[in-house]
Amino acid sequence: MKAEILTVGTELLMGQTVNTNAAEIAQMLAEIGAGVYYQTIVGDNPQRLEEAVRTAVRRADLVIASGGLGPTEDDLTRETFARVLDAPLERHEGWAQQLRERFARRGRPFSDNNLRQAMVPRGGVLLENDNGTAPGIYLQHPGVVVVLVPGPPHEMRALMREKVLPRLARELVGNRQGAVLISKILRVVGVGESKAVELLEPILSEQENPTIAPLAKTAEVHFRITARALEPDEAHRLIAETAQRIRDQLGDAVYGEDDTTLEKAVGELLAHRGLTVSTAESCTGGLVSHRLTNVPGSSAYFIGGMLTYSDELKVSALGVDPVLIAQYGAVSEQVAEAMAAGVRSATGGDIGISLTGVAGPGGGTAEKPVGLTFIAVADQSGVLCRRYQFWGGREQIKLRASQAALELLRRHLLDDRGG
Amino acid sequence: MKAEILTVGTELLMGQTVNTNAAEIAQMLAEIGAGVYYQTIVGDNPQRLEEAVRTAVRRADLVIASGGLGPTEDDLTRETFARVLDAPLERHEGWAQQLRERFARRGRPFSDNNLRQAMVPRGGVLLENDNGTAPGIYLQHPGVVVVLVPGPPHEMRALMREKVLPRLARELVGNRQGAVLISKILRVVGVGESKAVELLEPILSEQENPTIAPLAKTAEVHFRITARALEPDEAHRLIAETAQRIRDQLGDAVYGEDDTTLEKAVGELLAHRGLTVSTAESCTGGLVSHRLTNVPGSSAYFIGGMLTYSDELKVSALGVDPVLIAQYGAVSEQVAEAMAAGVRSATGGDIGISLTGVAGPGGGTAEKPVGLTFIAVADQSGVLCRRYQFWGGREQIKLRASQAALELLRRHLLDDRGG
Repeated sequence: MKAEILTVGTELLMGQTVNTNAAEIAQMLAEIGAGVYYQTIVGDNPQRLEEAVRTAVRRADLVIASGGLGPTEDDLTRETFARVLDAPLERHEGWAQQLRERFARRGRPFSDNNLRQAMVPRGGVLLENDNGTAPGIYLQHPGVVVVLVPGPPHEMRALMREKVLPRLARELVGNRQGAVLISKILRVVGVGESKAVELLEPILSEQENPTIAPLAKTAEVHFRITARALEPDEAHRLIAETAQRIRDQLGDAVYGEDDTTLEKAVGELLAHRGLTVSTAESCTGGLVSHRLTNVPGSSAYFIGGMLTYSDELKVSALGVDPVLIAQYGAVSEQVAEAMAAGVRSATGGDIGISLTGVAGPGGGTAEKPVGLTFIAVADQSGVLCRRYQFWGGREQIKLRASQAALELLRRHLLDDRGG
Repeated sequence: MKAEILTVGTELLMGQTVNTNAAEIAQMLAEIGAGVYYQTIVGDNPQRLEEAVRTAVRRADLVIASGGLGPTEDDLTRETFARVLDAPLERHEGWAQQLRERFARRGRPFSDNNLRQAMVPRGGVLLENDNGTAPGIYLQHPGVVVVLVPGPPHEMRALMREKVLPRLARELVGNRQGAVLISKILRVVGVGESKAVELLEPILSEQENPTIAPLAKTAEVHFRITARALEPDEAHRLIAETAQRIRDQLGDAVYGEDDTTLEKAVGELLAHRGLTVSTAESCTGGLVSHRLTNVPGSSAYFIGGMLTYSDELKVSALGVDPVLIAQYGAVSEQVAEAMAAGVRSATGGDIGISLTGVAGPGGGTAEKPVGLTFIAVADQSGVLCRRYQFWGGREQIKLRASQAALELLRRHLLDDRGG
């Protein structure tokens, strides 16, 4: 089954509203095994709306349209589908009555315009909307199923979940078309996108079901494995096989699945090992700690940290020897190491992690350019420091540095597994 | 000029990523007076991508495509436009060389796949990308201008702002098409959306040009003022008038314009007054400091901070009296005040700001529910504390708390202006 999502509204077209409806509807359709082949956004212009509707009903088996069901003359979705499908609008007396009663209860005047929201293309089923005045419409037409839902996200969501998806799922099963489509994401860090794709080439090239799609993120790569099958169990089995083959190739560069963030993966390792961590951040200004504490329950392993932005504070709060700063500069291996060891003793944590670097855009020199960062990890057996050269704007450099720090900490916890 | 935005990526089509790029590009095009007539989203499927590209170049005068410019075989945007426009791909040696050098500098292997990102359709102009490896492409073809930009939002944004929009604006002026459409955003904090709209009702109701659109954000509201005129000067004059009327109503709840974030507005006040600040964060885990240090040049006024997640650290790093913690609990007015005063003396800053609260989802009690937060500001004349009750998930509560802390600091700096 080929689905198309049509979202209607000038505010979407002009970018004044981000089109979250299209994304939500696509996810819902994937759950019932309907693949979305197109998404189209069109404004409230009659000709272009009609053209978009004609294209959609021609090329798709299922068209879900959201928006343009309001009571005003600008709201043309109902009328346009009725015309294109040659299914004249008829008044749904039950809904008209409900609308009149609702308006009366709230003491609001009821006009002929409001009756527009009780009009349904011939053959269509009206889906009652508990959250607003525009009902949904479900229309089984030769060759295409058309569903109209209102634009406000909470109204769309309730109608889709409660009325549309159950109908569509029955429809799909009845037709023996379609199957379930299930996805899993593997999250990879420490290996760039092209390198990872190269390593996975033998798997990627032969893969048809499940499909594997790489998604490049900032300083990490995700692989989305999507399996199609008649039953969920079979789809999960296919995904598990492919996931295992990817893990065999990439090893523990795969740090997590689905919505497991890197900070969550690190947190799980810390909790599992019963270790605590504290941070000494300079260039990242608190981002590493912010990420670590985004994880619910992080107070079990995160003690706290020192944001030693100024040199004086590196000395007074972390006990960094001012001679090191004078001799090597604040952005140096020596200072990073002293910071990591210093925060560990100041806070009594098992592990101390530190960052010092040039976040930019100012402050770079030929010797110490913008993006140069030292990250150190200290534990009871000593301290390890690595040098990084990040690129991008200030916020990108901060993000990449935080990513590298979490990955260095993860490596440390993995390598130290046996100890 | 009829513009179409084509966003490419299966993750968008399947709804795994919300299509913020399309909205951002549409807003940018509106600024230069190019009207967006269609938005289309298509996956990485070769046939459907080609169909979408053919449709777009046929019906639009300007096609902006984002996504699908990566180094892998799945990335087909460049190839598809080259085929549809009959403009064979040619290697851009300068960019190929830059890519080789970048990879070498970072010690990463360079493969033939990476060279795909140096290919440009004949007649196209390569637009260098400072934030990634995929350059933009600007192609003036008979009947249509085609612009390709990479999918990662920060790369798209920088390329569009710095390289594409100036070119397009020249193009539009040359053609004498379209009037200018210019927007300004006023950013409002400390007043909710419905209250702000109520206050502005007389202005909003009569407004046609400029238009005023309220945009609700987390713990702030933006008003976008958009003026249409034949010349930029006239549009700017119209905007300035309307902005003044809004400021007259809302007073200093308007904290900034356009991309001035709250942390930037606070930073400007600090810099202007020649004051320094340091932070003592608990529940926000570094987010306030992270936001303050996102502003370039923040080292001039941000000294650093203490992330005192554990009670022990509140005592040892900030000198909070353990009796206060025992008596009132870590989440209390008394502890917040001691933290703010403590970080001020520990760091030697002019102002200390502290937060202590229950970020959730666990840890709430009847007396101290999830979301309860105390925020204090200390300076040489004393300390002021406010109690807040935030709602939402953990990350939402952290964000709302950081917003409230920055606003409290801003109020402190504004009120203290005469002192």
